[in-house]
Amino acid sequence: MRQSQLFTKIRKEAPKDEVSHNAQLLIRAGFIHKEMAGVYSFLPLGLRVFNKVADVIRHEMNEMGMNEMFMSSLQEKEKWEKSGRFDDAVVDNWFKSTLKNGAEVGLAFTHEEPLTTIMRDHISSYRDLPRYAYHIQNKFRNEERAKSGILRGREFFMKDGYSFSRTQEEHEEFYEKMKDAYMRIFSACGIGEQTYVTVSNGGSFSKYSYEFQTICSAGEDTIYIDEVKGIAINKDDFNEETLKDFDFESDTSKLREETSIEVGDIYSLGTRFSESLGLTYKDEDGKAKPVVMGSYGIGVNRLMGTIAEVFADDKGLVWPEAVAPFKVHLVSLAGDNETVRGKADMLYAALQVAGVEVLYDDRDVRAGEKFAESDILGIPYRIVVSEKTDGRYEVVERKSGEVRELPEQEVLSL
Amino acid sequence: MRQSQLFTKIRKEAPKDEVSHNAQLLIRAGFIHKEMAGVYSFLPLGLRVFNKVADVIRHEMNEMGMNEMFMSSLQEKEKWEKSGRFDDAVVDNWFKSTLKNGAEVGLAFTHEEPLTTIMRDHISSYRDLPRYAYHIQNKFRNEERAKSGILRGREFFMKDGYSFSRTQEEHEEFYEKMKDAYMRIFSACGIGEQTYVTVSNGGSFSKYSYEFQTICSAGEDTIYIDEVKGIAINKDDFNEETLKDFDFESDTSKLREETSIEVGDIYSLGTRFSESLGLTYKDEDGKAKPVVMGSYGIGVNRLMGTIAEVFADDKGLVWPEAVAPFKVHLVSLAGDNETVRGKADMLYAALQVAGVEVLYDDRDVRAGEKFAESDILGIPYRIVVSEKTDGRYEVVERKSGEVRELPEQEVLSL
Repeated sequence: MRQSQLFTKIRKEAPKDEVSHNAQLLIRAGFIHKEMAGVYSFLPLGLRVFNKVADVIRHEMNEMGMNEMFMSSLQEKEKWEKSGRFDDAVVDNWFKSTLKNGAEVGLAFTHEEPLTTIMRDHISSYRDLPRYAYHIQNKFRNEERAKSGILRGREFFMKDGYSFSRTQEEHEEFYEKMKDAYMRIFSACGIGEQTYVTVSNGGSFSKYSYEFQTICSAGEDTIYIDEVKGIAINKDDFNEETLKDFDFESDTSKLREETSIEVGDIYSLGTRFSESLGLTYKDEDGKAKPVVMGSYGIGVNRLMGTIAEVFADDKGLVWPEAVAPFKVHLVSLAGDNETVRGKADMLYAALQVAGVEVLYDDRDVRAGEKFAESDILGIPYRIVVSEKTDGRYEVVERKSGEVRELPEQEVLSL
Repeated sequence: MRQSQLFTKIRKEAPKDEVSHNAQLLIRAGFIHKEMAGVYSFLPLGLRVFNKVADVIRHEMNEMGMNEMFMSSLQEKEKWEKSGRFDDAVVDNWFKSTLKNGAEVGLAFTHEEPLTTIMRDHISSYRDLPRYAYHIQNKFRNEERAKSGILRGREFFMKDGYSFSRTQEEHEEFYEKMKDAYMRIFSACGIGEQTYVTVSNGGSFSKYSYEFQTICSAGEDTIYIDEVKGIAINKDDFNEETLKDFDFESDTSKLREETSIEVGDIYSLGTRFSESLGLTYKDEDGKAKPVVMGSYGIGVNRLMGTIAEVFADDKGLVWPEAVAPFKVHLVSLAGDNETVRGKADMLYAALQVAGVEVLYDDRDVRAGEKFAESDILGIPYRIVVSEKTDGRYEVVERKSGEVRELPEQEVLSL
């Protein structure tokens, strides 16, 4: 993409009313726009990163045999009354609205109720199980305060996955596999080293669940890491019972305490929703049984914001290759020099033919500003074409700052 | 994809409370689920079609130099008050809700106001223009009645594009090009022959606009088609003034009258929003001028529903290849025969390697039911593997019903 056709500009300063570090970085670089507290729009570069993160997730979900779908945001009251979750006294962060006929509707903050209802049309026998579905879509939570940028918003994107199994054993087998799939997702996004499977209290649905916590100073959680086992425990759940059940190290001097962001969680729902919404199947003996469910969440905005915070340096964003908006930032210092411009145009074309995603800074801006802006954007490799370019190209790695002189062939296979 | 892993089943009958033909077809085949009147979720096969349609649109928008982005649904009141459109007396189909602090918010039914506001951060000089942006996302309209399936919903997906130009001339040049891009989109989706550029009254924003009307009995519009010129006029705008301005045939006996669906529209916004929201640029002489805007819409759900209605026959859906959920429906009639199953498995693998998108009916269901269900799904080519299969495969084209016996090599290059 030619930067001269990109509508966003880099801003000299982050907006004064933005207190979150990830949002400051992303707004300044033109990746997102703040619509109001906790509500952000994705600008072209931001959408590219978002889609990369979503595709990493999508790949692993598809590998797990999950079917992708897309559900409505508007939710009818009746379904949620069956599970008891329409009541504001039970769920206090609903956005609600009203149809013209006066009927109250909610904006989905999660999708257990509607998906369980859908599954009633498609599951009737043990032969129809197990089944797995997921979606990646915008959800709504009426947060009282929203000061964490895209880590916790009033409108945000979630990957929600749901499993439907015959028995608790069948459920647990899938659940354990999903734990590994989740770690592959975080590794593929570049934060594998910083992310720990974290045992925690399962909340209202099950006794225990797994969280995925990424070490980051912007986090709201505290975890104790057992370096030997490579897993962590949420500080909130550091009690005798949980320690015993997971055979977790109880001596805090042997554990590392860190501030972290919960980038994902998976938990067992049991028959909580299948019973309240009537999702049953007939077993081999023709006996009706409630379906055993599991839930698998990743906050896609949050994951993107976490990656931004974890890797950014004092110059700006630093994207891991797998989720970068482009792999290469081709910076032309042609000015009025048509020969240099020609060289840069040629390299841009060659990179595209080679399948390298490239943002081409073809603007008439001075070199210092181009380099500073390139650092703010955080694209992994910067290639400079200038009057000095002669056969070899200057390639700067954003992360390390390392400068290499590479021939075209190596540039094309970056 | 193996059909045994697809969670949706085909329903014997369409739901009784569904009066729309497109929704009946799509619900029965398991492409969509009705959440409430005018609100549908996309099930896995439906999402695949939706994504194909969206990608056709995306391709043409990117070719036009438009930047894809994604904006929030939640909208703050203040922005829309500037344009005068927050008032329910002006726009009567808002869904509105309330933040915890009591502030009223709306759910976007269109995005002129927020995008014009965003552009204030990125456009200041004539050097920053023209600029083009679009998004494909869910929108909300509180329709009093919603009986047209996915043709007109309370929650639906739109591709909205917006152009920002220096002058009316610059705007019109782009606007005319967009007219052609739109026709390429409808042709690529398979409805080119049925779709006409239709001149119409531009409503509140401009004197005239172009609609894109597809002939279909489910439509809400009536058009007069001038076969010689290959364009149409909306019956509502068949008056002396419009006829004269477009030099349109006035003798209705020389025109063909048809019922049609408006699948897209493009119109000039002039400076309506740039003036009310303060989007100006400095021209070469340093003088501030309002940006000239244009708006380009396609209802993605509506386009998908139109394609469904236009091509469906009495057996079920018939998808054009470009937007079909899969290109090939591989139907195995293996039963207990391991040899046949092996052959079908091999062909499934070979098709995938060849890059052919294939739904593999590997279920243990009798032949008649498999064929009937295959017709309901509407995948372009059905390939049957049975005990009779020997070197050549039976390939049935869904649209024509034509049956051919093809060797594997030709099957792989379908």
